[in-house]
Amino acid sequence: HKKSLPVYTSADVTKHATKDDRIWVTYGHGVYDITDFVDGHPGGDKILMAAGGSLEPFWLLYAVHKNPDVYALLEQFRIGNLKDEETSHILSNMEDPYEFEPRRHPALKPASVKPFNAEPPSQFLTDSFITPSDVFYVRNHLPVPEVDPETYSLEVTGVGVRTIYLSLHELKTKFPKHTLTAAVQCAGNRRSEMSEVKAVKGLSWGPAAIGNATWSGARLYDVLKAAGLEDDNPGVEHIQFEGLDTDAANLPYGASIPIEKAMDPKGDVILAYEMIPVRVVAPGVVGARSVKWLGRIVASEEESTSHWQRNDYKGFSPSVDWDTVDFTKSPAIQELPVTSAICDPAKGDTVTLTSEGKIVVRGYAWSGAGQKIVRVDVTADRGKTWHVAQFTGQDTQSKPPRHWAWTLWKAEIPVPPGEKQVQVELWVKAVDSSYNTQPENFENIWNLRGVLNTAYHRISVHI
Amino acid sequence: HKKSLPVYTSADVTKHATKDDRIWVTYGHGVYDITDFVDGHPGGDKILMAAGGSLEPFWLLYAVHKNPDVYALLEQFRIGNLKDEETSHILSNMEDPYEFEPRRHPALKPASVKPFNAEPPSQFLTDSFITPSDVFYVRNHLPVPEVDPETYSLEVTGVGVRTIYLSLHELKTKFPKHTLTAAVQCAGNRRSEMSEVKAVKGLSWGPAAIGNATWSGARLYDVLKAAGLEDDNPGVEHIQFEGLDTDAANLPYGASIPIEKAMDPKGDVILAYEMIPVRVVAPGVVGARSVKWLGRIVASEEESTSHWQRNDYKGFSPSVDWDTVDFTKSPAIQELPVTSAICDPAKGDTVTLTSEGKIVVRGYAWSGAGQKIVRVDVTADRGKTWHVAQFTGQDTQSKPPRHWAWTLWKAEIPVPPGEKQVQVELWVKAVDSSYNTQPENFENIWNLRGVLNTAYHRISVHI
Repeated sequence: HKKSLPVYTSADVTKHATKDDRIWVTYGHGVYDITDFVDGHPGGDKILMAAGGSLEPFWLLYAVHKNPDVYALLEQFRIGNLKDEETSHILSNMEDPYEFEPRRHPALKPASVKPFNAEPPSQFLTDSFITPSDVFYVRNHLPVPEVDPETYSLEVTGVGVRTIYLSLHELKTKFPKHTLTAAVQCAGNRRSEMSEVKAVKGLSWGPAAIGNATWSGARLYDVLKAAGLEDDNPGVEHIQFEGLDTDAANLPYGASIPIEKAMDPKGDVILAYEMIPVRVVAPGVVGARSVKWLGRIVASEEESTSHWQRNDYKGFSPSVDWDTVDFTKSPAIQELPVTSAICDPAKGDTVTLTSEGKIVVRGYAWSGAGQKIVRVDVTADRGKTWHVAQFTGQDTQSKPPRHWAWTLWKAEIPVPPGEKQVQVELWVKAVDSSYNTQPENFENIWNLRGVLNTAYHRISVHI
Repeated sequence: HKKSLPVYTSADVTKHATKDDRIWVTYGHGVYDITDFVDGHPGGDKILMAAGGSLEPFWLLYAVHKNPDVYALLEQFRIGNLKDEETSHILSNMEDPYEFEPRRHPALKPASVKPFNAEPPSQFLTDSFITPSDVFYVRNHLPVPEVDPETYSLEVTGVGVRTIYLSLHELKTKFPKHTLTAAVQCAGNRRSEMSEVKAVKGLSWGPAAIGNATWSGARLYDVLKAAGLEDDNPGVEHIQFEGLDTDAANLPYGASIPIEKAMDPKGDVILAYEMIPVRVVAPGVVGARSVKWLGRIVASEEESTSHWQRNDYKGFSPSVDWDTVDFTKSPAIQELPVTSAICDPAKGDTVTLTSEGKIVVRGYAWSGAGQKIVRVDVTADRGKTWHVAQFTGQDTQSKPPRHWAWTLWKAEIPVPPGEKQVQVELWVKAVDSSYNTQPENFENIWNLRGVLNTAYHRISVHI
C-alpha cells in the first residue's frame, strides 16, 4: 500500500487493456501502468495476456519473474493501489500448474523451483561416463505436463508431409530402435562464471548443466519418411517440435532444428521413448532443441515461432545490450562450441595432494556438431606449463562427425614450485577434432543472455 | 675447408652408409658424421637416402634445408674435408627438378622458392570475393610435375574397389560436373604471428595463405561409386590421394581424408579439372589434403602413410617440444577451426581516417567443416568496445554444414578517444554457425609445428 497513490477497483483496471487506453495490470496491492514497458518485455507479447488484470496467475506459471529485480522494475510503473478486499480473490480457486511435478533427487540444487531447474554437484558428473538419470540436470521452461503413455499421440504434419498420428506403441514397433550415447547441455551451462564479468539474464548455472546418457528411440528421419517427406523437398527448411507442456495462453514449449540435421540419417536425431513419452534427442545440438513431451512435429519453411527459438538462446557481441539487441540479427543456437570444465575438485574445495605432491583433477569436455575431443590441457601455473589430461571415459566406437558423447578426463598436476602454496588456480581447455579450442576469458565473449559460456574454466582450490 | 680436420675421398665416405659403420655425408667441402642425428631428423628416414654420399642432390629437391639454421646444425657434425677435386662433380649433369615451374605473378611473395611457396599481399584478398588465380597462395611440397592432359590417367584402386583408370576426358564426360565455391587454407597460415611467441618449424606465412575460388569437377563420391565402392564398406576408413609430384626417392606427395567426408555426397569433395589435371578439393578441410596433380586414389583401412599425413600437420599442447613429440598421439588435421584476419590495412600501414574520424578495416573470416561465419567483431581499444563488422562478401545460398566459402567483412572503427592517437592496435575475432570462436592469444595455443594459428589477429597501424 502506498498512501500517496489513489485506490482503484478491478473494474477500473479492466478498462485499461490496450495501448490506446493505456495498459494497466495489478500485482498484490499494486496497480501499474506498463504501457511504456510492453515493447521492451523480454518475453514479448505474452505480457499482454495480463492487460487489464492481475499478473499473479501468469507469474505462477512464469515463476522466473519472482525475483527482486523484476519486483523493483515493476514498482517503477506503480500508479495506484488495488482495493483491499479484491486482492485476496485473484488466486482463489486457481490450480497450481506445478502440482504434477515429479519428486526430484535431493542432490539436485535448484536454480529455480517453478519451473524446476536444477543441476547436481559437479563432482557427480565425473563419477560415471553415463550420468545417472536421477542426478541429470533438469531444464524446464514450463510445468511438467501429465502425459498418459496409453493415450499418447504424436502428430506429424506440415509441408510435404501426409499428416499422421503415432501412438507410443506405434513409435516403438513401426520403426527400428536406434540407440546412441550423447551428451546434452544447456545453452546457459556455466552462466554463473560469465555473470561475474557483468550481469546477464538467466538462471545462474554452475558447470553441471550437462549430462551424458544412452538414448533409444525411433529415428526422426524414419518417422518423417513414413509421413512422406522427401529427402530434398525445397519447401522444407526446418523441422519444428512442440511440447505437451503449455503456458498460460495454452501455447506449447517449442523449438526447431534445420532440415540439414533433421533429414540426415547420419544426424542421428531420435525420438527417445524409454524415459518419458516422448523426447527429441538432437545430438550435438543445444539442449533447448531436444523438446520434451513431444506432441507435434511440423515440417516447415520457417523456424519455430516460439519465444525460445526466435527471441532467446542466441549469441551476441559483447557490445550489444538490452537497449540495442535485435534478435533477428543472430542465428538461433543449434550446434554448440567446444567446452570443458573441472568437476572435481569443485571451486573452493580443499584438496589433499598425492604422495608425489600432485593435485588430482577430473572433469568433462565436449563439443557439438559430432566433433570428438582430441586433447584436454590443464595448468596450475596460469598457462606457463600445460599438462595433457588422460581420457578416462570416451566413446571410442564413434567417429566425427557422429561423435555425440562427452569425454571424461583426469590429470595429476604438480603444485607449482616456489613459495609454499596454500591456494592454486586450475585452468582447463579442450581441443576438438576440428581443432577448435576455447576462448580464454569471459570478457570478450560476454553476451547479454549469458549463453555459450565456454571460456577456460578456472577455479581456485586450497591445499 | 677446416684445416684442423682430416681430408677424405668420396670412396672413404661411401663406406659409411649404415649405423653400424656410422653414417657419413658430404656437403660442399665438408664431411659429416650424422649418425647421432638421423633419429631426430624432422623428415624421418628420408635422410638415409644420402648416407655415404652427398646431401646436395637431395637439398636441391628439399630446398627447405637451404637456410642458415640447417647449415649451422650440420656443421656441428663436421668430421673432415672432402678431397678438393671431388666436390665439383657432385651436381654436374644433374637435372634441376624445378625446371618445369610455371611463371608466377610478381605480387606473390615467396616464403620459399624451391619448392615454390608464396602468398600475395593481404590487401589483395579483400578486393574480390573470388581470389584471382594469379595471386592465389601457392603451397608446394615438391617440384611441379609435367602433366600432359592428353595422356593423363587417374588410377582408382584399393579395398572394396574394382581398379579403374580414368582419362581427363572420361572424368569430364562420365560424371556430372559439380561446382562449388570454397576457401582453401594452409595449416600454417599466420604462422609468423605464432613464431613471435617462440620459434616454430615451418614456412613463415603471413595472413594470406588462404584464398577463395569456384571449383568445378567430378564428385569424388560419384567416382568411388563408379569404381564399385559401397556406401558403408566397413573395411574402408580412409580415402588416400597420391600426387604426380615426387621426391628424390620417387615417392609422391600424399594425404588422405576420412571416409565420412569422402563418401558423403553432401561432403562435396570434388576432383577439380579446370585449372590443372587434376586437383582434389576437400572443402572445409586443411589445404594439405586437397592433393594436386592427383595420380591415384586408394580406398584403405589406413590413413595415407605419407610424411605429411603422419608426421606433420598435427596440433600439440604448448608443452610438447621436439624432444617429447609423439606424432601418433595427435590426429592429422582435417577440418579447420574458425579464423579471421585483418587484410587492409596491413600491419604497420599508415591509415587515413574517414571524414567521421574512423578507420576503415577489411578482412576475411572462415571456418572449416562447412560452418558459416555468423559474426565478426573488431576492436580498436583492446576489447573495451567491440564493433560488429558488416559482411561484404558471403555465399548466401549455402547453409551449414555445407557452407564452404569465406566471408569478407568491413568495419568502420572510431579511433579511441583520449590523448591524440598516433598508433592504434586493431583486433578481430569471428564466430561461426556452431558459435565456436577464436582463442585470444598465441601463448596458449602455441605448437611446435606452428599450425592452427587462429588467435585473434592483432595489428598496429599508424594514423
